[in-house]
Amino acid sequence: MDSVSEGPDWPEMEFLFEFASNYSYLSVMRIGALARAARVRVRWRPLLLGPIFRDMGWNNSPFVLQEQKGRYVWKDWARQADKHGLAHQRPTQFPRASMLPMRVATLAQDQPWMEAFCQAVMRQNFVEDVDINDPKNVLRALRGLVDDPAVLLVRAAEEPNKSRLREQTAQAQQRGVFGAPTFFVGEEMFWGDDRLEDALAWAVKGSKSTRR
Amino acid sequence: MDSVSEGPDWPEMEFLFEFASNYSYLSVMRIGALARAARVRVRWRPLLLGPIFRDMGWNNSPFVLQEQKGRYVWKDWARQADKHGLAHQRPTQFPRASMLPMRVATLAQDQPWMEAFCQAVMRQNFVEDVDINDPKNVLRALRGLVDDPAVLLVRAAEEPNKSRLREQTAQAQQRGVFGAPTFFVGEEMFWGDDRLEDALAWAVKGSKSTRR
Repeated sequence: MDSVSEGPDWPEMEFLFEFASNYSYLSVMRIGALARAARVRVRWRPLLLGPIFRDMGWNNSPFVLQEQKGRYVWKDWARQADKHGLAHQRPTQFPRASMLPMRVATLAQDQPWMEAFCQAVMRQNFVEDVDINDPKNVLRALRGLVDDPAVLLVRAAEEPNKSRLREQTAQAQQRGVFGAPTFFVGEEMFWGDDRLEDALAWAVKGSKSTRR
Repeated sequence: MDSVSEGPDWPEMEFLFEFASNYSYLSVMRIGALARAARVRVRWRPLLLGPIFRDMGWNNSPFVLQEQKGRYVWKDWARQADKHGLAHQRPTQFPRASMLPMRVATLAQDQPWMEAFCQAVMRQNFVEDVDINDPKNVLRALRGLVDDPAVLLVRAAEEPNKSRLREQTAQAQQRGVFGAPTFFVGEEMFWGDDRLEDALAWAVKGSKSTRR
């Protein structure tokens, strides 16, 4: 990890993602370093794709429902990962159940170790190909980041944290979110890992134009 | 237009597009200059999105059928056009009927004036916001490119050209195409204007690694 620390005057960007999403994997691995280099503060915001897809009339990922597209996206995803120098393995199960690590991420979303935790979960899903909803693996992803991972796991599955994740998802839908990853700079929305650089540039440009 | 002319040893890339498609607009305007700079030959291949979408169970563009996504893509499209320095205006009708210019493009797909014709039609749809299926506008797009545009219009609407466009579309489906623009380098498929640079790089890399 680079050593730049966030400044109070850095412009902000929201980063909405889901551990089950293969393109979210790319952004989770890339966003921290890119944002620090651009001097942009990232607000990590987990959201559940399940309810979003259900409201669009889908009972599964479009990559599963649309056969042709499904075949293509795994090839594209692997090429993009190669381009960015990221390890990748197509998961034997897709999309994976992700509720437990998603809840932990919701509890941790403003913690300094959020990035490290999310990267560990994403590596489990898209490199190690293991069950990310297994408490054993969530504890492993938390190792070295918090003093008492087991307590955190219990709190993550309780109220008000459970509801918070559902509320964040509902709010995202109201703002027009239909997939992940999605980035917001104010209310300007960017969808897809391939818009990450554009979103960062937008945040930087906006902060320059409003500076007095 | 730049003055580089294609060499016989340039690697090839197929470019599948549809005049009704807003992201195809971006690629039609960009591909020629980028490919010449990369020393890649472009095979322009019109294809009809209508039958492709129907086979996926859709009776219209997904940008019309999916409300949230539809709202987003026009914003994204405008931002991408701005980024590439391209004029843009959201058409008052979308997707526009495009059969007549698509047939002309099929007849002309290997002509040296193909790029100029396609850019003219695309500007009509996405800058001037006029009916691209009106013979008057197709003739206007052909102006200065061929000696007898009216004869060409008649031939475009006859066999075997009519069937050729449908066959190209069916072949594209068999190769896994589900949208436009799509690029092929051999059988390696790339979908979306935001993969144009990747496809070109793939063509260049492939031609270098097979050179003896």
